[in-house]
Amino acid sequence: MNLDDLPIRDDLRGKSPYGAPQIDVPVRLNTNENPYPPSPELVADLAEAVRESAGELNRYPDRDATALRAELAGYLGHGLTTEQVWAANGSNEVLQQILQAFGGHGRTAIGFEPSYSMHPIITSGTSTEWISASREDDFSIDPGKATAAIEEHQPDIVFLASPNNPTGTAQPLETIEAVLAAARGMVVVDEAYAEFAREGTPSALTLLPEHPRLIVTRTMSKAFAMAGTRLGYLAAHPAVVEALLLVRLPYHLSTLTQAAARVALRHRAELLGTVDALRRERDDTVAWLRSQGLTVADSDANFVLFGRFPDRRKVWEGLLERGVLIREVGPPQWLRVSIGTGEEMAAFRAALEGVL
Amino acid sequence: MNLDDLPIRDDLRGKSPYGAPQIDVPVRLNTNENPYPPSPELVADLAEAVRESAGELNRYPDRDATALRAELAGYLGHGLTTEQVWAANGSNEVLQQILQAFGGHGRTAIGFEPSYSMHPIITSGTSTEWISASREDDFSIDPGKATAAIEEHQPDIVFLASPNNPTGTAQPLETIEAVLAAARGMVVVDEAYAEFAREGTPSALTLLPEHPRLIVTRTMSKAFAMAGTRLGYLAAHPAVVEALLLVRLPYHLSTLTQAAARVALRHRAELLGTVDALRRERDDTVAWLRSQGLTVADSDANFVLFGRFPDRRKVWEGLLERGVLIREVGPPQWLRVSIGTGEEMAAFRAALEGVL
Repeated sequence: MNLDDLPIRDDLRGKSPYGAPQIDVPVRLNTNENPYPPSPELVADLAEAVRESAGELNRYPDRDATALRAELAGYLGHGLTTEQVWAANGSNEVLQQILQAFGGHGRTAIGFEPSYSMHPIITSGTSTEWISASREDDFSIDPGKATAAIEEHQPDIVFLASPNNPTGTAQPLETIEAVLAAARGMVVVDEAYAEFAREGTPSALTLLPEHPRLIVTRTMSKAFAMAGTRLGYLAAHPAVVEALLLVRLPYHLSTLTQAAARVALRHRAELLGTVDALRRERDDTVAWLRSQGLTVADSDANFVLFGRFPDRRKVWEGLLERGVLIREVGPPQWLRVSIGTGEEMAAFRAALEGVL
Repeated sequence: MNLDDLPIRDDLRGKSPYGAPQIDVPVRLNTNENPYPPSPELVADLAEAVRESAGELNRYPDRDATALRAELAGYLGHGLTTEQVWAANGSNEVLQQILQAFGGHGRTAIGFEPSYSMHPIITSGTSTEWISASREDDFSIDPGKATAAIEEHQPDIVFLASPNNPTGTAQPLETIEAVLAAARGMVVVDEAYAEFAREGTPSALTLLPEHPRLIVTRTMSKAFAMAGTRLGYLAAHPAVVEALLLVRLPYHLSTLTQAAARVALRHRAELLGTVDALRRERDDTVAWLRSQGLTVADSDANFVLFGRFPDRRKVWEGLLERGVLIREVGPPQWLRVSIGTGEEMAAFRAALEGVL
């Protein structure tokens, strides 16, 4: 017996599991992880927090993660309160809960592609129909075309990634406001990479007070360098959080996850201290790639999309042969490199010079 | 603006979030937690495991949780291998993934009620239609009626909880085999409480070699006393695990959860050592309740369903006033008490004597 013999959902037939290839190489620049491991002090505090909370591990966790949500609200600022913040196992689970509450069979979600490839996957995983709208050649979103697409399709959910993955550029607030004005459903601004944005890039959090159907999602996987902790969260109107309580699996967020995320928030000065270094390295990478005659999308993230290669697979493989793993993702002819340490980026540059 | 003004899914309108009331009282016997906290040695090992794995928390976890699944397979025995085991954040997430792979819009799942109340909730949360079949007056399942219901409705998924929650009794293997013979879809045997079953109660794991559409789910929340860790798992044919890989959110299980669950498995002698004490306390509770003239369902779990009370709410409130929180759940006129320590059960008995 094999998979084809099982009565799986029809739209799953022939599909492969999502995920970047996990290859063990010296330089991994493929999943937009933060290259800086936690300090020994942070590791010691994490172990101590687990020691303190583990004495009650026979009990279920706080189902509403109230203390963590209060501290996330404090971190986000903008006058946000516990009631406006929600958290789950990675922003993927946050997005899935949004789709379970506001999407489902007979409903639609729209996104502007190329964008985060999990948006359509999570959408169809919740029986919601995915509508793909497109970006301009420079990967920007034209506000007029975006509002026209929304008026035509009347989607229940609009996804806007800002900074966008895999292209890297943030959306101007005007585009988000135009979408909010046109949409009758929920508007999700996925700000997984917000902390890396270039100086002067405003967050959609500033729009929350006037837009009760706006949801801004964040993660601790990138700027907070906590990908292994799996903590995603969002800010929205308190009624949106109430809606998510109707679909969240009870006790979805473990005692250990809640404790670890709170420790990370206490150490935010250290963790977010890596952001400046990564931004500098990112800007240097963009400049260097352009100096090589390559085309590079403006980046507000901890990765850079560059091209164009008639045979991108060959470039990707050439880098891999030289011990550097990047990601073959997004529009054809482009490749995405995550920003690593200075040493890792030097290895990337040397490898790419070797390939080209 | 409030929840009613938001464009939530129609079938969520008017619903309340699932979950037992969280009330801070001296004796909590309401959510089938294991009353025995981890030992200082186990807590120290958990902290040490976190210290060891935290140095890589900036990296995503092992997406396939391979080491943990291998060790869970070893714990389950029956010749099971890594490829036959899957794990997620609590058995609720395991069940949700099963429904996402094998259910969805236009498909159906059947259960024999009263049973675990999350089965219909997770079913409708994945746009799958729930079909409620009923149990006999003694809460058993009549194999003839069960197969007739399956032949009539042709469900895509059949849920069988064994031991059943909230009634407490395990299913004979003959019933499960009759259901497997009749069902064309997947058959999920929810064995969350299997370790507490009375002597001689076989697990549905013994049926796996001959039944590729059988899925047996387990949890570390009950016998393993790890409710705060949120680790559910299943055993099935390797093709079933492949199907779940198509719907699982990538990196769903954190580095810390994987590490903590592996520590718990290493300490299984200590953790499962509480099972014998809880079984004895359970059997004593059943005998005592019957000696009070009450009706009690046979229990293979760490809880007992007892009744019948024309006004069960009044009994529940009377116990709460005396500092004992049990659960008002399941069939009308019945109440469910989780098995606590000897001291907690003495408090329960004294409180119930006071109420009656």
